[in-house]
Amino acid sequence: MAELKYDIIQTIAVLSESPKGWTKELNLISWNGRDPKYDLRDWAPDKMKMGKGVTLTKEELLKLKDSLEEIK
Amino acid sequence: MAELKYDIIQTIAVLSESPKGWTKELNLISWNGRDPKYDLRDWAPDKMKMGKGVTLTKEELLKLKDSLEEIK
Repeated sequence: MAELKYDIIQTIAVLSESPKGWTKELNLISWNGRDPKYDLRDWAPDKMKMGKGVTLTKEELLKLKDSLEEIK
Repeated sequence: MAELKYDIIQTIAVLSESPKGWTKELNLISWNGRDPKYDLRDWAPDKMKMGKGVTLTKEELLKLKDSLEEIK
């Protein structure tokens, strides 16, 4: 994988933590200096490694929000 | 990557579609016959390929839902 430069602008939520300390987080992240995007992924303790995840535009995040209305 | 068997139980939302037809979706998916989990990822047209993504437990999804309250 190519080297990625990223800057975590805001941590919106920590959804869970595994026994080994990995956390699943929703962050607002700027990748390679570009405009920040929402990002949902697993992180190792102290952000030493990142797991697989998805980035979301604000529009996608708002659609996701709407779709979660039905989940109780 | 090891062969994965999956069964899409429910498509909860299609968040976006790229010019090449890939869609970002929230689905409820059973992986390898296990209990279904929520799954947010990109899919090629007709589900021929899957992109990177995250799986979420119901508890994680509900936390995510709560955290999105602040996003307008």
